[in-house]
Amino acid sequence: MTSQLQTAMEGLIEVFHSYSGKEGDKYKLSKLELKSLLQGELADFLAASKDPRVVDKIFADLDENKDGEVDFQEFVVLVAALTVACNEFFIGCHEKLTGTTQWLMGG
Amino acid sequence: MTSQLQTAMEGLIEVFHSYSGKEGDKYKLSKLELKSLLQGELADFLAASKDPRVVDKIFADLDENKDGEVDFQEFVVLVAALTVACNEFFIGCHEKLTGTTQWLMGG
Repeated sequence: MTSQLQTAMEGLIEVFHSYSGKEGDKYKLSKLELKSLLQGELADFLAASKDPRVVDKIFADLDENKDGEVDFQEFVVLVAALTVACNEFFIGCHEKLTGTTQWLMGG
Repeated sequence: MTSQLQTAMEGLIEVFHSYSGKEGDKYKLSKLELKSLLQGELADFLAASKDPRVVDKIFADLDENKDGEVDFQEFVVLVAALTVACNEFFIGCHEKLTGTTQWLMGG
């Protein structure tokens, strides 16, 4: 049986390849493929940015070896950073909620 | 609607907290919690290692700030490394399969 962690890891690989196979090197994201991935998978995150050059900036940041494409290892850096940020947000919310509950309970 | 990438990221956060909450700091993994996570989520990976000290070694590697616990950011490093390795394995298999198919088709 596949564990929750394995499912999540498989999900990351599947998502990457469902976009990377569209043009050029099928195992790397072109800028157009990255844009399509961000729009399809992280639309809220993209919408939250007011910067019209956000995709260009993310692409330039991720393409560490400057080969004009983002490979899976470079993509995972983005996912890791976003997931850490989400986790910190989650902990912040949880702490606030716990604090409010304790306050309401007179604790 | 939640995208596949968001689902995968949520999965990583959920898995971490389902183990980190058992003892000590509820937002960090103790060595016992990490061991439990590896056994529960990555049993095949753990079984593939013949080294009885594998958990100790992974824990020491991940605990970058040496506080005796593994936080989410440290955990994500392990997940990223494993996922990159899985992806490379997947690409290797896919290339072999494509090569074999082409050979069978006389291509």
